[in-house]
Amino acid sequence: MFYISGMARFIHPDLKDVPLASMLHALSDSTRLAIVRCLNADLLGGGGGLACNIAAPEELARATMSNHFTILRTAGLIESRKQGTKVVNCLRRAEVDARFPGLLDAVLHVEAANALD
Amino acid sequence: MFYISGMARFIHPDLKDVPLASMLHALSDSTRLAIVRCLNADLLGGGGGLACNIAAPEELARATMSNHFTILRTAGLIESRKQGTKVVNCLRRAEVDARFPGLLDAVLHVEAANALD
Repeated sequence: MFYISGMARFIHPDLKDVPLASMLHALSDSTRLAIVRCLNADLLGGGGGLACNIAAPEELARATMSNHFTILRTAGLIESRKQGTKVVNCLRRAEVDARFPGLLDAVLHVEAANALD
Repeated sequence: MFYISGMARFIHPDLKDVPLASMLHALSDSTRLAIVRCLNADLLGGGGGLACNIAAPEELARATMSNHFTILRTAGLIESRKQGTKVVNCLRRAEVDARFPGLLDAVLHVEAANALD
């Protein structure tokens, strides 16, 4: 089951239709992990989402960046919306936590520990 | 850094050399998740490990099965040893938990909940 946000631009899955293996695959890339960590920090700070080029960890080719965000969106990890000429992305933290309890906590905990190395 | 067990047959990584993304990739497949769940149950039951064809969830082609176990071993998830003509596999649960706290708990929790569906 899908719902379509904005101008039928982005398709976001219902988390209950996302298999664990798909969620783990979306997280199994260091660039995507960095994006998730960045969007989580934005969420914790009360931010309203981040543009792709702000959330991405470094200068990426446009197609590469777009592909990473598509994988994250397809796995139900992020919600994307058009805002003017930008695409703004938010982590679907509460929904992911409800579907996969403890998973993002564990992943972000490791990421934070690594960042301290 | 690697250590080699048995007759230089299998190479097992030191968990500290395994990036989170590699661990998540090894877990991002439903067959491999089923193997991990099965080996975890064996460990909890005090078992001494399981042969590949016992731990695998179904009849798999030999090459497919071997590939799954290689991916799990390369990511530091399992230890394999020759026992007679068989290969016996154990989940490296304590080491994985020490390196990635809460990750296997979260993954196995979702797997158990799905199994109840």
